[in-house]
Amino acid sequence: MLARTPPAPYYAVIFTSVRADGDEDAYMATARKMFEMAHAQDGFLGVEYAPGITISYWRDEASILAWKRVSEHMEAQRMGREAWYAAFNLRVARVERDYMFERT
Amino acid sequence: MLARTPPAPYYAVIFTSVRADGDEDAYMATARKMFEMAHAQDGFLGVEYAPGITISYWRDEASILAWKRVSEHMEAQRMGREAWYAAFNLRVARVERDYMFERT
Repeated sequence: MLARTPPAPYYAVIFTSVRADGDEDAYMATARKMFEMAHAQDGFLGVEYAPGITISYWRDEASILAWKRVSEHMEAQRMGREAWYAAFNLRVARVERDYMFERT
Repeated sequence: MLARTPPAPYYAVIFTSVRADGDEDAYMATARKMFEMAHAQDGFLGVEYAPGITISYWRDEASILAWKRVSEHMEAQRMGREAWYAAFNLRVARVERDYMFERT
């Protein structure tokens, strides 16, 4: 659940969304596929997910742009705008510092 | 649910957590109180929330630090480390660009 990221700086893509109704099976299948594909991308550092929020972490802006342009991801983005989301926010942010806590 | 933030740049505090068992009532009461108090802070821009993930948005680093040092918030942070969370990640990130989509 929690991503173990390397020391800052690195980048976060914060994707928050409100789903449109319906098409649950196709949406979930694509979401799973995109998770798998993102993990295999160069520069991918990890992901943290909860319903309506996905935060993926990346080494640099170049790796974010490369992932944005993967053709199957572009098709998923198109479906997202045309069918799956009523609204979403996408934010690209530079993580400047972080703090990890784990109960001992 | 989705926060309407002003044009970038601004800051995001990404808090992802795994709860420890128990103490649900005190935890929820404090979480609600902290939401209310954060909204009243100078520089607070909005919040996006899902179970296990809270992202708050802030005008600048100074407003993040001021909120960190509010005494009731410091007490909530202490309880978080001592009782409520098994683990958490806290990341401070500078939002460099964003894109908002809303179905018309």
